[in-house]
Amino acid sequence: MGNKIRIGICGFGRLGKGVQTELDKNNDMELSAIFTRRAASGLPGAKPGVKVVQTDLAHEWKDKVDVVILCGGSASDLPSQGPYYAKIFNTVDSYDTHAKASAYYASVDSSAKESGNISIISVGWDPGLFSLMRLYMGAATPLGQTYSFWGKGVSQGHSEAIRGIEGVLDAVQYSIPAEDAINRVRNGENPKLSKRETHARLCYVATAENADLNKIEKTIKEMPDYFLDYDTTVHFISLDELKANHGKLPHGGYVIHNGATGENNRQMLEFSLKLDSNPEFTASILIAFARAAYRMSQNGEVGARTIFDIPPKLLSPQSPEQLIVDLL
Amino acid sequence: MGNKIRIGICGFGRLGKGVQTELDKNNDMELSAIFTRRAASGLPGAKPGVKVVQTDLAHEWKDKVDVVILCGGSASDLPSQGPYYAKIFNTVDSYDTHAKASAYYASVDSSAKESGNISIISVGWDPGLFSLMRLYMGAATPLGQTYSFWGKGVSQGHSEAIRGIEGVLDAVQYSIPAEDAINRVRNGENPKLSKRETHARLCYVATAENADLNKIEKTIKEMPDYFLDYDTTVHFISLDELKANHGKLPHGGYVIHNGATGENNRQMLEFSLKLDSNPEFTASILIAFARAAYRMSQNGEVGARTIFDIPPKLLSPQSPEQLIVDLL
Repeated sequence: MGNKIRIGICGFGRLGKGVQTELDKNNDMELSAIFTRRAASGLPGAKPGVKVVQTDLAHEWKDKVDVVILCGGSASDLPSQGPYYAKIFNTVDSYDTHAKASAYYASVDSSAKESGNISIISVGWDPGLFSLMRLYMGAATPLGQTYSFWGKGVSQGHSEAIRGIEGVLDAVQYSIPAEDAINRVRNGENPKLSKRETHARLCYVATAENADLNKIEKTIKEMPDYFLDYDTTVHFISLDELKANHGKLPHGGYVIHNGATGENNRQMLEFSLKLDSNPEFTASILIAFARAAYRMSQNGEVGARTIFDIPPKLLSPQSPEQLIVDLL
Repeated sequence: MGNKIRIGICGFGRLGKGVQTELDKNNDMELSAIFTRRAASGLPGAKPGVKVVQTDLAHEWKDKVDVVILCGGSASDLPSQGPYYAKIFNTVDSYDTHAKASAYYASVDSSAKESGNISIISVGWDPGLFSLMRLYMGAATPLGQTYSFWGKGVSQGHSEAIRGIEGVLDAVQYSIPAEDAINRVRNGENPKLSKRETHARLCYVATAENADLNKIEKTIKEMPDYFLDYDTTVHFISLDELKANHGKLPHGGYVIHNGATGENNRQMLEFSLKLDSNPEFTASILIAFARAAYRMSQNGEVGARTIFDIPPKLLSPQSPEQLIVDLL
């Protein structure tokens, strides 16, 4: 193995910290710099020896970093960070606002093409591995129906929606897939499922002392898009209990495809995840795609890519020859 | 959509017949010719209007077929058919003799490069989708262990091994994955499993009238590689019963990966298949990869490829833009 792939991290929340940790499990890579909007003098949790660089000075690191893994959020960080960093570096990100993915792709693509970089967007498990499964499964048996279920796991978006309600100090929301729906899908019923039938929502909420609990519960349950169309349960607990028992970020889910071939032969494909730590898992996937981005860039490719564009072999540190021997 | 992709089938056993059936579910493709060693005058089961062509005359179809799907067996057909057809056409096959895959790759690669064709080898579900899962899962969390289980399903190789024994008229062998082993893996034990602990073997055997049943059972159970290292059960049944109850070719299996991230966080990934018809499912996958082969060839690529080399988007009839909207 030659030189290590030099990785930069942009954004140092749970996901960025996860990338830092998981990089240690990849011998062909090393962490070179962390880019952050915060003051560069000391970033809590950063590994000793790793340079902490202000976002504005990122361009000075153009030739010292091979791929930057963007670890910001999709709502407020990536729409600007994606195109900004793609002008300087090869990038990988986990952009997950599905409805705006095409527009985000276009904006990153334009930056990356201008600078001659590669940017792989929307990598993780959904979008990410789940997207891949939907594609492979549908391609494997085109006559069929694919279902995705999420959970049991913490949805950051839903948790934040609750935190925005007056009187709420903190909150954690678990999405819970309906076992009945999953079993109907597994049984090959190909059911038409309402939102309410696919997932339930379980909320743990810590409130200020004199908060109006009835009003908060009503506000949650009637929140459109987030909760209105689901069976939602709200438990009020203390802030201490919330921090003690709901501080982890487990997640998981299922992609199930009921295919049909020949004269009514059923072909069922299922992919599932049970994750102790959603951010660490997403971080670990981002790292594999950073390897792919590096290799594609070395190969002269430029522009934005999605997970659908990436030859699987580029994710593995092993050589194509060894992959045939070990994994084919 | 422009012209349809013109598909040829080489070999017209269960797999080849499956390709013929499943092509109907892919609007962007059409069956143009079936290549066979048998006399070209009428091939039972061939669709009306499809040309049946002697192997020796395949070269006359060079410009009339875009991709030939090779449906022969790995033991006796593909080692010669793979390189032969790659000299004339783009090809896809399901070569599955794992120990010889690298050599087969090299021989097909040499033919395909000589002729300027693309050949995707070893496509199906194992090797195939299972290989992909092993790669993606290992890349997603490099610190981890991946297990593959097969069944419950009919193993053609094991069935044929029994059929070769003197006094046996016909036989069907089911590979049965050990539930206990699967559960230990799912529980994150990362067990070291012997062959006996992973799969059992269940055989239904029809014999000639005066056959020595004890001797046959002993011969089966002591057959090295195939049965000796497994718990093997043999049931002698009539030929009628065998044909009536064991004529289908169901199969399935599991790929399970126990990954670890951070400070002992478990990340479990599982992929499973439950197939009513193994040959039809394999046929359907081969068709998706024929689409990829066609596109790669149109793009000027030449030589042999494995499933690890293929960008997933090439498998789908949808455009990359639509894939982002529908599946990402």
